[in-house]
Amino acid sequence: MGTTTAATIRKQFAFLAELDQLKSVIRQSQLINRTRCENSAEHSWHLAIFALVLSQHADGVNPLEVATLLLLHDIVEIDAGDTPIHAPDKDMTVLKQEELAAATRIFGLLPARQGRNLLALWKEFEAGKTPNARFAKALDRLQPLILNTLTDGGTWTQNNVTEQQVMDRYGPVIDRGSKALWGEAAALVRNHFSKHKELASVVNHSPPYTTEK
Amino acid sequence: MGTTTAATIRKQFAFLAELDQLKSVIRQSQLINRTRCENSAEHSWHLAIFALVLSQHADGVNPLEVATLLLLHDIVEIDAGDTPIHAPDKDMTVLKQEELAAATRIFGLLPARQGRNLLALWKEFEAGKTPNARFAKALDRLQPLILNTLTDGGTWTQNNVTEQQVMDRYGPVIDRGSKALWGEAAALVRNHFSKHKELASVVNHSPPYTTEK
Repeated sequence: MGTTTAATIRKQFAFLAELDQLKSVIRQSQLINRTRCENSAEHSWHLAIFALVLSQHADGVNPLEVATLLLLHDIVEIDAGDTPIHAPDKDMTVLKQEELAAATRIFGLLPARQGRNLLALWKEFEAGKTPNARFAKALDRLQPLILNTLTDGGTWTQNNVTEQQVMDRYGPVIDRGSKALWGEAAALVRNHFSKHKELASVVNHSPPYTTEK
Repeated sequence: MGTTTAATIRKQFAFLAELDQLKSVIRQSQLINRTRCENSAEHSWHLAIFALVLSQHADGVNPLEVATLLLLHDIVEIDAGDTPIHAPDKDMTVLKQEELAAATRIFGLLPARQGRNLLALWKEFEAGKTPNARFAKALDRLQPLILNTLTDGGTWTQNNVTEQQVMDRYGPVIDRGSKALWGEAAALVRNHFSKHKELASVVNHSPPYTTEK
């Protein structure tokens, strides 16, 4: 093996070891078995399989390329942390700057050309303009929606999020990626909130969401 | 949306929700920051990125297809559990039967044709005969090797595994996938064991591995 190959591999190993930290970035969503919150590494794995399984419901996308965008999309959280959709704790302009700096640093650990290629994929996801990136963003909204409907509302219940807020925050992004998937996802949301209201009216004799903004 | 599409999506959502359980299958390897053991979902994410980054060191492989094999390869552990390489707690024939039953059940949740396609990919990985599958298996050995060298020997130290046993258990599989990667990985192993022996001789005035079988 030449010195160049050895040096290349060492940089790649350093990048891969750095990525281990994404397993310690904790999201707000709980696992379906509710034993703990999800981390961003396993979330990314789950999303990549969403891409393999659901791409037939989007036009002009390549399932494996969508999976690739999703494998890489959260890596910046190693430096910038996860920003919860229902309780953002940062200004969005500041967050975008932090994430770009993180992407530059982390992909910069790789051999130059490879680092540039992966950084370009990360930017493609962020921009959300190609069919692959639009669909990847839709899945990144769909996965926590499904987890929430299977964990008694999950982050919606935690953050007192209303049905209308869910429709507003998830609907446009998922619908833009796939109308068919949003059709089914919206049915899950409606079903969740109608069950939740029923249960609350039995327990409290009043629906739980009437005072929320 | 037609009834057929809706029924298809519901099956796919059920499959994706089922997969959430892989996040609760715990492996022996620790994270590099040693806060806890790794689970099989985040391990699969890590491996998929190994595939994207390292495929140039193998002949005749498609990085995205290798990543796909690795995203799916551990799903059977939802039913069959993780079997540690250094402390297998099951007969291999029994394990293989359990894993095949698990794959049949879990991929069987999907619409029939899609389920058959993904089951075929799982079987391709298991058989390890195509260039993609051989390389995927090499990465599945390489990733824990790297984690171990960064966590004071990790599962090797835990299970009193000797340098020779590491060479025997990891070498052939990694070398078959990529000679260049095994070259670098073997150097990491040698370096780990030589440091470990040095340290042990300072602490105990005797090398730690001499009485092991």
